[in-house]
Amino acid sequence: MTDLTDIRALDAADPLAHFRDRFDLPEGVIYLDGNSLGALPREAKKRIADVVSREWGQDLIRSWNTNHWIEAPRRVGSKIAQLIGAKAAEVIATDSTSINVFKALSAAIDLNPDRPLILSETGNFPTDAYMMEGLSRLTGGRVEQKLVAPTDIPSALTEDVAVLLLTHTNYKSGRLHDMAALTKAAQAKGILVIWDLSHSAGAMPVDLNGCNVDFAVGCGYKYMNGGPGAPAFVFVAERHQNQVFPALSGWMGHANPFDFTDDYEPAAGIDRFLCGTPGILGLAGLECGVDLMLEADMAVIRNKSLALSQLFIDLVEANCPDVNLVSPRTPELRGSQISFAHERGYSVMQALIARGIIGDFRAPNVLRFGFTPLYTRFEDVWIAAMALSDIIRTGEWENEKYALRAAVT
Amino acid sequence: MTDLTDIRALDAADPLAHFRDRFDLPEGVIYLDGNSLGALPREAKKRIADVVSREWGQDLIRSWNTNHWIEAPRRVGSKIAQLIGAKAAEVIATDSTSINVFKALSAAIDLNPDRPLILSETGNFPTDAYMMEGLSRLTGGRVEQKLVAPTDIPSALTEDVAVLLLTHTNYKSGRLHDMAALTKAAQAKGILVIWDLSHSAGAMPVDLNGCNVDFAVGCGYKYMNGGPGAPAFVFVAERHQNQVFPALSGWMGHANPFDFTDDYEPAAGIDRFLCGTPGILGLAGLECGVDLMLEADMAVIRNKSLALSQLFIDLVEANCPDVNLVSPRTPELRGSQISFAHERGYSVMQALIARGIIGDFRAPNVLRFGFTPLYTRFEDVWIAAMALSDIIRTGEWENEKYALRAAVT
Repeated sequence: MTDLTDIRALDAADPLAHFRDRFDLPEGVIYLDGNSLGALPREAKKRIADVVSREWGQDLIRSWNTNHWIEAPRRVGSKIAQLIGAKAAEVIATDSTSINVFKALSAAIDLNPDRPLILSETGNFPTDAYMMEGLSRLTGGRVEQKLVAPTDIPSALTEDVAVLLLTHTNYKSGRLHDMAALTKAAQAKGILVIWDLSHSAGAMPVDLNGCNVDFAVGCGYKYMNGGPGAPAFVFVAERHQNQVFPALSGWMGHANPFDFTDDYEPAAGIDRFLCGTPGILGLAGLECGVDLMLEADMAVIRNKSLALSQLFIDLVEANCPDVNLVSPRTPELRGSQISFAHERGYSVMQALIARGIIGDFRAPNVLRFGFTPLYTRFEDVWIAAMALSDIIRTGEWENEKYALRAAVT
Repeated sequence: MTDLTDIRALDAADPLAHFRDRFDLPEGVIYLDGNSLGALPREAKKRIADVVSREWGQDLIRSWNTNHWIEAPRRVGSKIAQLIGAKAAEVIATDSTSINVFKALSAAIDLNPDRPLILSETGNFPTDAYMMEGLSRLTGGRVEQKLVAPTDIPSALTEDVAVLLLTHTNYKSGRLHDMAALTKAAQAKGILVIWDLSHSAGAMPVDLNGCNVDFAVGCGYKYMNGGPGAPAFVFVAERHQNQVFPALSGWMGHANPFDFTDDYEPAAGIDRFLCGTPGILGLAGLECGVDLMLEADMAVIRNKSLALSQLFIDLVEANCPDVNLVSPRTPELRGSQISFAHERGYSVMQALIARGIIGDFRAPNVLRFGFTPLYTRFEDVWIAAMALSDIIRTGEWENEKYALRAAVT
């Protein structure tokens, strides 16, 4: 499958191909970093301009009612719910993933007040562990953070653990956890489970309720194409919603925010997981990304994601020396990204980016490529793999302009 | 001063008059609610469109470096610092006011670990007290919230109080606290002080460092014209910054966020008060609002604010029956809004809004009018007062379409 004619036949037969034109993509760029910042839906450009000009500029404060700003976190949340196997009233879009991790963790320790440990894994995207650390300190050590290697999680599920926080798809390797099995194993020990879906939501089918998950959080600006720093979301299983007093008890989560009473009374249901005034521009962008995703079938997205990923592995392994696959080789065990290690990964990635092929680098040596089926073509994968081969074989990456410096992407 | 010719002479002599054209204001509307949601700067419309189309759409993930997204919270914070008497490195723009209140409170109790009380006032905008309540629960009662009437604050400053949280300008009455005196009195008892500047920043000169303030928070979408749900800001006095371990210890506040280590090491200085990925669209809008405000002289803004407010009081009291001034009569004791009580305040405000004169209503009976000197004319004040008089005198508000219903604005 290295003949370009065959590759183009895959694009011609792709049932998702028509989605590409719904995005405003730059000319001459192959974008394999939608797992870090998703591309711009054309509709978002129009919608955000309308929110700014008409809703903010012309309708001003009245927009909270007339343009339904007040309902936006819940409305967008209910749409995200459809992507992750949740009920409409179990998800709300607001704040950042980090803040939502804190909300879920603090709710979970409230529901499991006699257990001293909050458990997670090493090598996760670090904000999850960092937020645990802050929470632990704030409780005066009432809960202590414990991090174990991913493979040691099953044996760490003991009856002194209040909550298990795991990321479904690892940000660096793309390795998937078995959500159903780990949730079941943890709950069998009375442990509540939080899943971080940052690299899963919008990338593959997720079935939170099918797995009986307690809490989840996720990111709006990656696979959901919500725009830079778009609001994140938090899922709270219906059975827990009215049992917890939110630790971040802001006015928008109050039962009657416009009564302006001195005492906090949490709203019924998912609304109590709101805190301050939500970012309306960010929510507008996010809603467009989610709406677009809801037009596609998530099973079809997953199929194409695996096909793109497999093609990339095959082409890279056949053509590129000095790289080692970091992601799991078994398709069912990985998300929608492929990572390869290369000793000089940073420089190799800079050389690729200079050619307009955008993936990213994760320390210390990982080349990371995200495959976003709504706008990535099989031909893009072919071009990227051939460029990578060329850069490595010719030593193009050795040019000093690609030398390591502070990396942000 | 009720003759329209005299009023127009005031506008003709107004040194801030030329700022009005920098805003995209709706035709036929007199907007006296910029204390709730500021108007749209023309520049923000252009800037946000550019951030969406070029920075997000074309430059994609590269924008974190090439378009300086990564620096936006600090850059915007350093500009806000100029409006509130802070050093550039003492303010960062991110998250909501509520979340920033939580950060400041948790930092303060960390600095004052042996004191059990966190003190605030009744009748404040409630999110401040609500966040205290959540924090108190999370610490397992290590700190307890205490709310006293505003006049009782001086006598409540005792040595068991860790932190005093006050709002500088009351959201409902516009009454100002004496920041210098209360900060000094509290600090004399070893109490740390947090000022909520939501209704002050951008409305009047504020001198945080002149008053030796410890922490402050404030809102981006009111007087600073940052757009709906724009990021808020947090000020931390330089002397405290490296002494506190942030409770909301997210990855963007890490010393080396792109090292992705498992352990949290707080960044030096104000950066540790970042948490998750910041909302870039919101920051872009906020920066335009702040830039515009920095072009004006805050002392001139304050003078015009007081002149507009006084004119409104005079006209309303001379022409409107059945209303009572809620705001302090002494100009130095109030912010940039005027509130009047009317028994049927909700209906009166709806009738005003139906005429295109937009103030807002605060339960149970308060008509609230904000005066934003960059785009409010003396003639607007005259028209608003005359309309209010007409509505009350004729009983126009008694129309059933203005009857009380769920109020959001």
